[in-house]
Amino acid sequence: MNLPGIDLENIYAVKSLGQALKIREKITQGVEKAVVIGAGFIGLEIAYALTDLWGIETSIVEISQQILPGFISPELAQVAQKHLQDQGVNLYLSEQVLEFKGEKSVKEVITNKRTLSADLVILATGVIPDSRLAKEAGLKTTSWGGVIVNEYLQTSDPNIYAGGDVVALKHLITQEYAHFPLGSLANRQGRVIGSNLAGYQQTFAGACGTFILKLFDLTIAGSGLSLERAKKSGFKAQSGLALQFDKAHFYPEKDLTLLELVVEEKNKRVLGIQGISSNGDSLKARIDAVASLLPFYPLLKHISNLEVAYSPPYAAAMDIVNVVANVTENILENRNRGALPEEVKAFLEKSLQDKQGIVLDCRGEDNAKPWIEKYGDLWLNIPAENLRANLDKIPRDKEILLVCNTGARSYEAQLILNKAGFKQTKNVLGGMGFLLKYGLNL
Amino acid sequence: MNLPGIDLENIYAVKSLGQALKIREKITQGVEKAVVIGAGFIGLEIAYALTDLWGIETSIVEISQQILPGFISPELAQVAQKHLQDQGVNLYLSEQVLEFKGEKSVKEVITNKRTLSADLVILATGVIPDSRLAKEAGLKTTSWGGVIVNEYLQTSDPNIYAGGDVVALKHLITQEYAHFPLGSLANRQGRVIGSNLAGYQQTFAGACGTFILKLFDLTIAGSGLSLERAKKSGFKAQSGLALQFDKAHFYPEKDLTLLELVVEEKNKRVLGIQGISSNGDSLKARIDAVASLLPFYPLLKHISNLEVAYSPPYAAAMDIVNVVANVTENILENRNRGALPEEVKAFLEKSLQDKQGIVLDCRGEDNAKPWIEKYGDLWLNIPAENLRANLDKIPRDKEILLVCNTGARSYEAQLILNKAGFKQTKNVLGGMGFLLKYGLNL
Repeated sequence: MNLPGIDLENIYAVKSLGQALKIREKITQGVEKAVVIGAGFIGLEIAYALTDLWGIETSIVEISQQILPGFISPELAQVAQKHLQDQGVNLYLSEQVLEFKGEKSVKEVITNKRTLSADLVILATGVIPDSRLAKEAGLKTTSWGGVIVNEYLQTSDPNIYAGGDVVALKHLITQEYAHFPLGSLANRQGRVIGSNLAGYQQTFAGACGTFILKLFDLTIAGSGLSLERAKKSGFKAQSGLALQFDKAHFYPEKDLTLLELVVEEKNKRVLGIQGISSNGDSLKARIDAVASLLPFYPLLKHISNLEVAYSPPYAAAMDIVNVVANVTENILENRNRGALPEEVKAFLEKSLQDKQGIVLDCRGEDNAKPWIEKYGDLWLNIPAENLRANLDKIPRDKEILLVCNTGARSYEAQLILNKAGFKQTKNVLGGMGFLLKYGLNL
Repeated sequence: MNLPGIDLENIYAVKSLGQALKIREKITQGVEKAVVIGAGFIGLEIAYALTDLWGIETSIVEISQQILPGFISPELAQVAQKHLQDQGVNLYLSEQVLEFKGEKSVKEVITNKRTLSADLVILATGVIPDSRLAKEAGLKTTSWGGVIVNEYLQTSDPNIYAGGDVVALKHLITQEYAHFPLGSLANRQGRVIGSNLAGYQQTFAGACGTFILKLFDLTIAGSGLSLERAKKSGFKAQSGLALQFDKAHFYPEKDLTLLELVVEEKNKRVLGIQGISSNGDSLKARIDAVASLLPFYPLLKHISNLEVAYSPPYAAAMDIVNVVANVTENILENRNRGALPEEVKAFLEKSLQDKQGIVLDCRGEDNAKPWIEKYGDLWLNIPAENLRANLDKIPRDKEILLVCNTGARSYEAQLILNKAGFKQTKNVLGGMGFLLKYGLNL
């Protein structure tokens, strides 16, 4: 990053222990406003720490339209973005930093849209391999500087091994070289390299990019490809999205978990999974169960019947990870024609104007009541269990948006309506629970 | 079960909703002492509820030497047994119920060792398929009554499908028919059967027997075969055992997790995993990551490098699931010659008498001090980091039992001693942490 003012004091990258110590020293001297550039893993973790641990008013500037671009879908990102904002973090997306201003020390961050006051700036715009030494030694590197290693973690000189953030590993889904700067992989590679130096023949096949991130009271995790990455890598892919309690519905403590499963269309191969929950350990259980399978070329049916551990304090009998696979299959088979939040928003706006669409709310009366009051004729309430007996109340000439709490009952309603000849139906994926987490201003 | 007095009042099986309601009714009328017969899943869950939810003095009588016989090793079982006793449950193992006594209602349970007072008795000695209907219809069943189904969940009459507790499923490790009476499998089978009835061709390949159980503040979980079951099924198998924090060592909230991995010797195929932790969701994450792989014929190296999600609030960089695989490999390769608690106990008793063995405590001085005070010359303390410089202090003519907090540093010590020509060393698997959880009265 080579912007005007980048050399001002109190602008730091998070690259070394020395820099981390300097940041802490600066903070203990007193910081009022911090600006973090970049909403990747490091930027978000830093922003969380500045806000939660140090009580500093913190802004994040991110050039992409979402946080964690490429790692999670815009829909999951928006859930986390809402949470960040609820926690008091100022988030500026689709915004580019142009310049830093100040006398000796930084005072302002100038973007293409605004000027932010700052007495501390953290640069977290990405990690590149520090492979100068390897290049000077004549070792093969990728265009982006990753030291190329084989499965024994030998570089192009078989007497030189490499591991950690500097290496280019095979991505086990795309089969291309990729960068996985993660301490966990570095640790495991260390054991493989050590064993091989001691005369064994151990291998490290590559990685799928499994990740987990704590962001205030939310946890975001994933493995393999997001839908966006899958498409960029040339897969014709789709994703399914499910919202469900992570425990049995009658268990007192439980968290709504949101999972998204990415699948290749032609063969139903699972390419990735991502999720968000307020119970991080519980989310990790779902993500890791799929993550560990990804190198084994799993198909959708394997996730539908994935034999994860069940008892009511830990899971629903039909676990959310099984459910997201079933939802995805229903979407691929065109049984579940889903609507995501932005489509819901557009549908409501359009229907309010042209009166060509209605919402069919499949929940109980009490749940539906405030929406009927707000939307009037646009919002029709027929609880799912009464649907078959009340088909005559549903207009046949209008588009119908089906909704319930989580998207499960409204999907069943969609099947019933399908059978009854209603063709213009869409089902709100993740239901009202998802729209709420998404922050859709209905 | 056909014992004298079995027809007395207030003796119940947990077989139907009706019986559960009767048990609750009896409890609300007042129960002082309950006896549960059987320490399988149902018996343990009932005993936990009676004690914790209802405050009833509860005893468990189990004919085997351990709880959950066949599902977990005697070592993991003892950790749970200690916890049960710490919570006030009376546990009578290796004990057989002979008779129930009372006038109209049960008053006493007579075992081969004692008489227990009881005003409530719960029979939880096992589940058998209720396949009378299937047999009358001429469908094929196993010797133990399970209705045999193929992967489409069709019975021997292809027009009759079956699922749930009544069926015999293929065990995906042993390839033999087995009984998996679990609500989660029943749910997933329901979808497969429903789809096939609707003209699809969905499959349910079988099961590995993944389970999870909450027992007061502990969670016990597993998948695949325990070491005992593996041997009974004809596998030449070994297991490795590791104790480690589930989070980064510097993270404030963390739980010591105990994992045991069962592996076939000849090809290092992973046959099963079991574990215990006070954080159930976190344990579920480790068990499910392996459980989901088991049908794919995983090898030890796959678990060593299993790419589970890492960041400090959720895992150590070298996750406990990776560590247990490494420990198991070290055991298989005879680098780690481990000692389990009963062997530790025997070693101490013998050494106190014949002075032929010493304990080498590889922890810091403060940790070792009370043990030196208790055992004197038998207990030698050299912190692992000082070991190479102090080899001359270690007697070469004695058996050496190496110990640290979790078994990791003492294993490194074993390697150093190996190299230095000390051949009679054993390493306490899981370290002092495990001995403590095991309740070994050192």
